[in-house]
Amino acid sequence: MYAFASELYPLPRSLTGEYVRQTLDKIQQKLPGLGRHNANSGEQAFDWVVPPEWRVDSATLEGPDGPVCSWEDNPLHLMGYSVPTIDTMSGEELARHIYAAPDPSVIPYTTSYYESHWGFNLSDSQPAVRPEGRYHVDIRTDLDVHGKLDYADLVIPGRESSEVLFSTYTCHPNLANDNVSGMVVQTALAEWILSEPRKHTYRFVWCPETIGALVYLQRHLGSLQRNVIAGFVLSCVGDDQNYSMVESRTGRTYADRVGRHVMNTWPRTMHYQDLAGALPLRNHDIYNWMQRGSDERQYASPLANLPVVCLSRSKFGTFPEYHTSADDMSVISAEGLQGSLDMLKDCVRILEANGRFRAKFVGDAQLGRRGLYPTLGHGVRDKRYQHVLSLSDGEHDVIDIAERTGLGTEFVIEALDTLRGHGLVEAL
Amino acid sequence: MYAFASELYPLPRSLTGEYVRQTLDKIQQKLPGLGRHNANSGEQAFDWVVPPEWRVDSATLEGPDGPVCSWEDNPLHLMGYSVPTIDTMSGEELARHIYAAPDPSVIPYTTSYYESHWGFNLSDSQPAVRPEGRYHVDIRTDLDVHGKLDYADLVIPGRESSEVLFSTYTCHPNLANDNVSGMVVQTALAEWILSEPRKHTYRFVWCPETIGALVYLQRHLGSLQRNVIAGFVLSCVGDDQNYSMVESRTGRTYADRVGRHVMNTWPRTMHYQDLAGALPLRNHDIYNWMQRGSDERQYASPLANLPVVCLSRSKFGTFPEYHTSADDMSVISAEGLQGSLDMLKDCVRILEANGRFRAKFVGDAQLGRRGLYPTLGHGVRDKRYQHVLSLSDGEHDVIDIAERTGLGTEFVIEALDTLRGHGLVEAL
Amino acid sequence: MYAFASELYPLPRSLTGEYVRQTLDKIQQKLPGLGRHNANSGEQAFDWVVPPEWRVDSATLEGPDGPVCSWEDNPLHLMGYSVPTIDTMSGEELARHIYAAPDPSVIPYTTSYYESHWGFNLSDSQPAVRPEGRYHVDIRTDLDVHGKLDYADLVIPGRESSEVLFSTYTCHPNLANDNVSGMVVQTALAEWILSEPRKHTYRFVWCPETIGALVYLQRHLGSLQRNVIAGFVLSCVGDDQNYSMVESRTGRTYADRVGRHVMNTWPRTMHYQDLAGALPLRNHDIYNWMQRGSDERQYASPLANLPVVCLSRSKFGTFPEYHTSADDMSVISAEGLQGSLDMLKDCVRILEANGRFRAKFVGDAQLGRRGLYPTLGHGVRDKRYQHVLSLSDGEHDVIDIAERTGLGTEFVIEALDTLRGHGLVEAL
Repeated sequence: MYAFASELYPLPRSLTGEYVRQTLDKIQQKLPGLGRHNANSGEQAFDWVVPPEWRVDSATLEGPDGPVCSWEDNPLHLMGYSVPTIDTMSGEELARHIYAAPDPSVIPYTTSYYESHWGFNLSDSQPAVRPEGRYHVDIRTDLDVHGKLDYADLVIPGRESSEVLFSTYTCHPNLANDNVSGMVVQTALAEWILSEPRKHTYRFVWCPETIGALVYLQRHLGSLQRNVIAGFVLSCVGDDQNYSMVESRTGRTYADRVGRHVMNTWPRTMHYQDLAGALPLRNHDIYNWMQRGSDERQYASPLANLPVVCLSRSKFGTFPEYHTSADDMSVISAEGLQGSLDMLKDCVRILEANGRFRAKFVGDAQLGRRGLYPTLGHGVRDKRYQHVLSLSDGEHDVIDIAERTGLGTEFVIEALDTLRGHGLVEAL
Repeated sequence: MYAFASELYPLPRSLTGEYVRQTLDKIQQKLPGLGRHNANSGEQAFDWVVPPEWRVDSATLEGPDGPVCSWEDNPLHLMGYSVPTIDTMSGEELARHIYAAPDPSVIPYTTSYYESHWGFNLSDSQPAVRPEGRYHVDIRTDLDVHGKLDYADLVIPGRESSEVLFSTYTCHPNLANDNVSGMVVQTALAEWILSEPRKHTYRFVWCPETIGALVYLQRHLGSLQRNVIAGFVLSCVGDDQNYSMVESRTGRTYADRVGRHVMNTWPRTMHYQDLAGALPLRNHDIYNWMQRGSDERQYASPLANLPVVCLSRSKFGTFPEYHTSADDMSVISAEGLQGSLDMLKDCVRILEANGRFRAKFVGDAQLGRRGLYPTLGHGVRDKRYQHVLSLSDGEHDVIDIAERTGLGTEFVIEALDTLRGHGLVEAL
Repeated sequence: MYAFASELYPLPRSLTGEYVRQTLDKIQQKLPGLGRHNANSGEQAFDWVVPPEWRVDSATLEGPDGPVCSWEDNPLHLMGYSVPTIDTMSGEELARHIYAAPDPSVIPYTTSYYESHWGFNLSDSQPAVRPEGRYHVDIRTDLDVHGKLDYADLVIPGRESSEVLFSTYTCHPNLANDNVSGMVVQTALAEWILSEPRKHTYRFVWCPETIGALVYLQRHLGSLQRNVIAGFVLSCVGDDQNYSMVESRTGRTYADRVGRHVMNTWPRTMHYQDLAGALPLRNHDIYNWMQRGSDERQYASPLANLPVVCLSRSKFGTFPEYHTSADDMSVISAEGLQGSLDMLKDCVRILEANGRFRAKFVGDAQLGRRGLYPTLGHGVRDKRYQHVLSLSDGEHDVIDIAERTGLGTEFVIEALDTLRGHGLVEAL
């Protein structure tokens, strides 16, 4: 995954345009069945309108002492969706088009999708803008009102129509954790899902944030509302810090329940394991709806009302490199990406195996003669199968049983399979 | 309000009689629409009977060394509803008719409404009663079985039949916080309600405690049960200490919910603001039904079952001057009364504006083009309107939204108005 | 009770056989109405089969230096359900048939009911088994496939068909707390129940653990499911330590509610009272379903689903003498047994008196004229009857009222009787 991330990282993506298409092409090389779609600029998506397609040919800023910065040096120097501008002005006039990050050593990431504006983002590695200096702005961009907004999806049918949704965003330029990591991990997860038959149908969406999710909802809302049992937005899943989750609006959907269970049981991350004893016991963060920020905003909004949460490692806005040029390939790691993939596989495993089960006999079953309980009454005995059976009452599901017994979903799923094999429980 | 309180303070009120009528007259001067009502002595009110009307002409106690005390000196010296008695007796015999407060420097407040008895209440400023001394009791009172019990109400119709009830008691003699404060603050609140049209109907009741509330329930129970959505008994609202509330029997009525919200968000009182940093964080007390004591007892009783709580500053029984001559005009203040009035206005504002709202668009609305969200993607942005919109799901009401977002009802109410103006939400 | 326990203690009981019958005979001497029942070996009980009846004639182990141990010395030396075996073997071969407790000074209690096996249980008072020694095993037992499994019950009809179940187990040999104590306390409780007419019907069951409860369920399940409102398994109720309870599977049955209330209000035990101030505040333990272990496992299993909890003093498995020869008559005491009986009587008293009550008057009743409230308004007044009346709303039951008022069920039950006598509340 790290190699694939390195390939996607340098592409100067935006909401729309050629580099989004190149990104989706690369994903399609790994997932040949990927569905490629687009919406026309000007198309309505609920309260929003698809903006023009943005193309950058070049963008430079020159000052009294020579070049200040250019899009070619680093695409982050140019504000996203800057309108075409060729002009000369004083540093004083230029100032309202210049943006810096709180940490002056890095270039901030800025956009102005829906208001005509242009801007340059600078770090202290660039010459400072002097009010009295003369500056030449040369932004050769195009906002094509006959353009397209590109996105992709992949639906992997299962034995049942119940759907699990994964969605991530494609609109950030060369920023590694936010969100090359999401695109890469979601691609790997889809490859794994393709590798074997499943109960649920799995739907993966790669689209630009906000407007892309809204276009997707505009086109698929009825079907999503009918079928999606749980959905997960993937954002910033490449570093090796704690896992985190943003709850849905109600905090009570099936996605919340699965997500919280996995957060609560997932082992400490590498990062924290190094620090050994000096740790707080919590190894994850669960944020509520007030801390939302990615496309869970759209999917779980009042009228869409889908059971969708957002999963991250360091959540957007909580790590210092966020939305700056420092969010480069050193922020993410092969281990960080793999950990996120494993955590997501655990969500899938639970979703696949979950259900309610009911014992077929009154009282304890005689587990001793099936080798599931010691026949010898002496000392402490292994009661794990007994515990699972004793909660197979048609009300507790796998997550409930795992949480009440403390045995973990992996054992509980295996135990229920074994007990079913012996004819002792039935699935409801 | 303090000036009005000074006018009401000296009147030697009781359950019934001339001074209650004078008190209601003075309220009526401020509220000309006040409804004046009475019940006849002997009238039944559920398990109770309206007692005779009590009139005091004079009451004196003389001892071996001259006068001990008289009703004219201070009405509190005479036990409420003392029966007429002219007699001479030893100090020993007299002793069972003499009452003192735990703090001997103040005169206690005592009554014996429903059992024939008489008594004098003394502080250590009066000569001590000596067992061997001879005492002359001269109590010229009258218990008129053809008398009246007076009370008043004011119903201010709103656009809807849903009613908000405020009730306070008129039966305590010259005691300032308990309950001149309640009569005065309720009068000012009614004047404010009259000043502009409202959604709800507002019902104000001034009546003697217990028997008055029972008479009122006997006459209006069906209508109150049909219409009252929330009710508030006002008691001891004139000092400048913390606000407090006594929950209804279930603790789960709409009045409990509004009252608790206001308690939890109301700013620190003057008293505590002076103490600055050294404070506990709680600035109010919420008592449960076991600590009840005023007419919430009747309104929220099992068979009346109205959604009524009691609001106070220092709750009855918790301040040292309670039910003694020390509860004088120095216990209450203009600021204390005003703070209570403002707190009650806040309850009314919330009751008027509360409701459930629903977004009219799937997903976030594009707030940027309405000036409700920055269009520029850079740094931290003000998400307050987004938060309010994101909870406009037809389930959260204004209180829920204020509590989940931490934005306060004032902002939430204004934001919902603004969002309605933009056609983004609708009231349900 | 201690004397009766001393009589039952020495009998070498097992799942089945003569000593169980002798035990039930002794109980029947105290409860002549006891119903005696049995099941045939080979009879099915849900997933289980009644095992053969086990008879011991003698059992000895001899080694190179003479006798090692014999059943006659102490029945605990012989593993329960040891198959008949006469053989000579090396100490090395013998080793897999020798059992010791973690504390080597005591003999462990072992069984092998459902797998053909034999064994001897030794303490360090017996000669150690030497690998190279020759040992002679002489176990003269019989496993009679035409035998019986004995149990007993007693149903004491009440005025209503609602049943309260008490069940305890008869299968442990000479072990005092586990469970001579349970048999003895249950017998005394039944004698007390017989002494006066009751509202509920009381059902007492004495049976071998697990298989006995399953046989009982097989024969009575429909009736138990229709009638039992609360059930209590008694186990290890003879020491003088804290009381404890194991919750049912759901933790939300009526038995859980009554049991938890009694646990929470029962006074400290003698043991802890001696230690005075140095105590934790909790004086009982409430274990959840994961800590179950006696016949609550069968009664509250998913398909039986009866409202049954387990009550103990030191719970099985938590005291050092558990399942060893040290669980002798010194572990239990007259006071310990009596405390358990009193605690169970309290459960019965609550079950008998519990119900929902409703006030017959709107508002407070005038308790003063019934002598239930001081008529004199002065100082702090006793509001206990007012509190009980104020919660007589048809929703709170006796336990709710006792818990909300803090007055205890004993006072609340008496107060409701008094209030009923005055026509102020009615039972629903």
